[in-house]
This record gives sequence, C-alpha cells and structure tokens, in this order.
Amino acid sequence: MREQFITLEHGSGGAKTMEFIQRWILSKLGNPYLEPLDDSAELFLGQDLRIAFTLDCYVVSPIFFPGGDIGSLAVYGTVNDLAMQGAEPLYLSLGLILEEGLPLAELEKILESVKGAAHHAGVLVVTGDTKVVKKGEADKVYITTSGVGLIPPKLNFGISNARPGDLVVVNGTIGDHGMAILASREELGIESQIKSDTAPLSLLLRELGDLKFHIRALKDPTRGGLATTLNEMATSSCVGIEIWEREIPFHQEVLGLSELLGLDPLYLANEGKLVAIVERSKADEIVEVMRRHPLGKDSKIIGEVLEAPKEKVLLKTKIGGKRIIPILKGIQLPRIC
Amino acid sequence: MREQFITLEHGSGGAKTMEFIQRWILSKLGNPYLEPLDDSAELFLGQDLRIAFTLDCYVVSPIFFPGGDIGSLAVYGTVNDLAMQGAEPLYLSLGLILEEGLPLAELEKILESVKGAAHHAGVLVVTGDTKVVKKGEADKVYITTSGVGLIPPKLNFGISNARPGDLVVVNGTIGDHGMAILASREELGIESQIKSDTAPLSLLLRELGDLKFHIRALKDPTRGGLATTLNEMATSSCVGIEIWEREIPFHQEVLGLSELLGLDPLYLANEGKLVAIVERSKADEIVEVMRRHPLGKDSKIIGEVLEAPKEKVLLKTKIGGKRIIPILKGIQLPRIC
Repeated sequence: MREQFITLEHGSGGAKTMEFIQRWILSKLGNPYLEPLDDSAELFLGQDLRIAFTLDCYVVSPIFFPGGDIGSLAVYGTVNDLAMQGAEPLYLSLGLILEEGLPLAELEKILESVKGAAHHAGVLVVTGDTKVVKKGEADKVYITTSGVGLIPPKLNFGISNARPGDLVVVNGTIGDHGMAILASREELGIESQIKSDTAPLSLLLRELGDLKFHIRALKDPTRGGLATTLNEMATSSCVGIEIWEREIPFHQEVLGLSELLGLDPLYLANEGKLVAIVERSKADEIVEVMRRHPLGKDSKIIGEVLEAPKEKVLLKTKIGGKRIIPILKGIQLPRIC
Repeated sequence: MREQFITLEHGSGGAKTMEFIQRWILSKLGNPYLEPLDDSAELFLGQDLRIAFTLDCYVVSPIFFPGGDIGSLAVYGTVNDLAMQGAEPLYLSLGLILEEGLPLAELEKILESVKGAAHHAGVLVVTGDTKVVKKGEADKVYITTSGVGLIPPKLNFGISNARPGDLVVVNGTIGDHGMAILASREELGIESQIKSDTAPLSLLLRELGDLKFHIRALKDPTRGGLATTLNEMATSSCVGIEIWEREIPFHQEVLGLSELLGLDPLYLANEGKLVAIVERSKADEIVEVMRRHPLGKDSKIIGEVLEAPKEKVLLKTKIGGKRIIPILKGIQLPRIC
C-alpha cells in the first residue's frame, strides 16, 4: 500500500529521507543547482564569482545539551554546510519559530550562544525572522539558518569526485553529537561525560591552505552518521569505499554506550566532523596539518577508495572480516539536530 | 515587572515585535547589515556586485486558504522581500518542518504550489532541508524560505529615503490576505469571497523599468499591515506621512467584515501589495504604468510625505478630520503568515 502520512523516518537523514527527497522534492522542484544534493548549492553570480548558499532547520531536543545548544548548533551547522562546499562562510540569516510560553531567559541564552558561535566562526547574522506559535504548536524553539559564502576560484569539493586510490580522512572521534543528545534525554536516565562536537569546520579547512586543492570530496557526517555519508559519497562518485574499524577514532564511552543501547556508532550524528576523500600522495601531509589545529587533533586516515564494489561501503573489522555498511535504514533518534 | 515569557504578541509584527527585535536581537547580533531592518540585507560581494539576502518563517494557519496556501505564500513572501530591496529574485532555499502524521497528499499539494509559484516568479529552489517532529510538536507544516537576488547598480530602495513632498502609492486593495485568513478560520464561521492577494511583486516592479529609479522607499505591508509599514517608513526616514482614507482602495467586503469584527483594516496583513514612496513629479506616470499590469490594476496615490509631525502617520478621514495612526499595538491575529 502506498504510504499516506509523514513519519519520523522521513526525517532520519537515511534511506527514507533520500527516498523522500527524490520522490517529493526533486521530482517537483529539480534543477541543475538542486540536483547534486550537496550541502550547499553553488551559484554563479556574474564574472567569476561563485557563492555557496545553504539552509538548515534545527529542531534538536533538548535545546541545551552537553557541548552546545540549538543556537550554536544552528550557526555551526550552516557554517559547516558552506565550508563543505569549499566556501568561506560570510553571512547568515536566522529564523526563529518560538512557542508561546518559552522563558525569555532560555531564549537569551540561545541568542548569546548564536552570538558567540557567529563570532567564533567569523560570520555575521544579517537578516532574519521571528514567528510565535501558540503553546503546544511547537516544542520551545525551532531555528532555521541560511547562509552564503564565497567559493575561491578553482576549488571544487562536493561528493562526486572521489577516485579509486584516494584515502579517507576524518578529523576526530565519531558519534559524539548523537550520543551526547541521546544521553541528555531525561527519559533514558543515562549519565555520561560525552559532549557534542559541534564546531565550525571552516576554521580547520582554512588551516589547510593550498592543501585544500588535494581534497577530492568533502562532507560532514551529520544525520545518518559516518556510514550514511560514506554511502552518499560512494554512490555519487560511483566507487567503492573501504574503511578500517581499527583506525576509526571513537571515544571509549561512545562505544560503550552504543553497545549498551544496541546502536551502531557509525550511524550516530556528528556536528564538528568532516570526511575528506583526498589524493593518496597528500593524505599524510593533510592529516599532519589538521592535527595541529584543535578541531583536527585526532585526525586519522580511516580507509580508502576502491574500484569495486561500486556504490558500496565496506567495513574491515578488527578481526579482519569485511561487511557491507548500508545507508541508515529506519531511524536511530528523532530530533538529533 | 520584567516580562519572563514569549507571548503571541512578540510575533505580531507590530510594536512588541519591534521592541523584541531591538532588545533581544539587535543588542546581541547587531551589525551594519542587520541594523537597517530592511526586508532583505544588502551584501557586497566583490567588484560591483550587490546581492539581497533574506529569510522568512511561515507558520500560517490554516495551511490552505482562499487564494493560496503556505507553499505559494512562502515563495512569494521571500520573492517580495528581495524585490522590496530592488533585487531581481533568483534563488530560493526551502526549509520544511513537518509534523508526524501530516497527510502526504497535503504535502504534495503544498509542494506543487511551491513549484507553480517558483515558476511564476521565475526563481529556482536550489537547496533546502526537511525535518520531522513528533505529532503535537508542530502544527502540520512550517516553512522557512531564504532567498538571494541581484540588485542592479545604483538602485537603492529601503525605507529610509522618503522626503517631504513625495507621494505614497499602493498597488491595490488593502487587507485582503489578513481577512482571507481570518475568514477561513473555522471557529469564526464566517462566509466570505475574499481571497488572499499573495503574489510576486517582482513582476510588477519589472514592468516599471527605469521608473524604478524614482521610487524613494519601498516595502510590502505584511504583518502589522499598511499602518505599521507606513510608521516604519516615517520613523526610518524621519518624516511625517499623511494618507487619505478616501483614496485607499479596499474590497467592500473587507471593510464590512472589519466593522463586524471590530478590526481596523489598516492593520490587516497583505501579501501581494507594496507601498512605494515616489518622487511627486513621477507619481502619475508610475501609477499609470502599474495599472497596466494585473498586479497593479487598482494602483492609487493614497497620501503624501510631510516635514512634520516627524515619525508619525496621519489619516485624513473621509469627513476631513485627521488622526494619528500608530504602529500595531497588541496582536490582531496569530499565525497570519
């Protein structure tokens, strides 16, 4: 039977979200700017000027969590989507949907956090909108941020240029944001030290200087986690990707809690991590430079790009077996970001 | 006592919204791009390139109403905010916050409407995001749209350039959107023929060609209505504005229902109307050209800009009296757009 209603799974960031976007969004609104489904659209505005343009909705719950809140998350998330397109993030817009009865003290804390995050990332909030809905018509506050940035000449990131032989780099521990949100949900009663990794990745990329030109594909593994992002890259680039379990950096506590909760940490959301597929000959140098920056101190080469199996992601386990890691099916956690 | 909670009035678009923006947004995030509080921010991106950048949240209820729906409203609203800055609207981004359980048939209708509106306005949806929240954590669907457009050289609209002697032009009947939404709320049990005026004003402005350079100030009177918009213009330009009740175009039914409901139609929202403050010597020509376009067929000169009283709006009534029309106090209607 044809499905009739929106479900939480439509917002999972995994297989169901992709299907939703294909069937409901691209089929109606498709155009060459939208179709790459990159984190930002790349727009040409006269002369040689390329700008990146992006938008994200944030409905994270709880709105305050270890390591951040919905305000800093909204700023960094949008900054990161611009950065993943190779752009220098410049300007943000801020849309607030507020629930009647929201304590102004909480809103103030969020706006202070927006201010601090924008300052840290070097962007300006230049426009916005505020709407208020009745009590019970939203959950405290939803933020939508949009951003524009300038893409330097000749830089082309996206996710469709990975080639066999390239290496896969991440800038640190995987799954921290997802586990921090999960652990902060009161109903689970979990005590943990895990903090969200939310951070502006543009700062780390800036550190790379001209080494950036040796990145072939780039994306931040947010909803759907590392596994889903690698699948998107493999599909988009028509290659296989193998990652090595032994090399993937995790906080011990994220692994422990994942086991306890029956979750696969490869599917947990990240908000301050990037996956860079880089030219093999430059990979060590890139990792070395990234490690000098606080946001990249745990950078690692975690895998490589293969000819085959095309459009698949393989995990080489610690004991040497290999298994296919599919895109996220179902939903791990609603309102993760 | 200092207020402690967000109320519906914070989202009215009137005095309380202005106070909220001053106290909570500008005080924390203020910068020269944000501070004019124009409908769009004007950004300089290398060479002589000026782009307009805007964002709007739409929480209108009901999501389908006579004359439009939340989809077309979101597209046209953002197109209009760009157009009011003098920009040619080019690219939109689309953020969907969906409530679990939303019928896909309703979402399809909305997306079809987005598609049609984008096509009509000549813009492309190039990026976006979709989030789903649990049943009861939103009311069906909230849309946030952001947009960018190119501002032609030497064109400067905004709301701060009105000068004494200028004339005030509107492109048609006032209050239609607000009354259409009000009448479509089931709980009121009103029967009416009024339709929302939601439309892309960029098409009308394009018709003006070089006459655009004789517009001194421009804004679309959405939340807070004509009265609030004129007050913003008077304050921002440090002038007085007098409007003539006899000249303001209204649908008879909007006037009748306003009287019945005890509302002032000058405060009802519009979504396909503009207020242009134009050079006196060009006003007749501007109105004449506007009347040739379907979106301007009822264009009228409705008032003039005065030296004094500064920062005030006066209404000259049909019987010849004058009274001050303040900015919207309180709230006429939540979730009007």
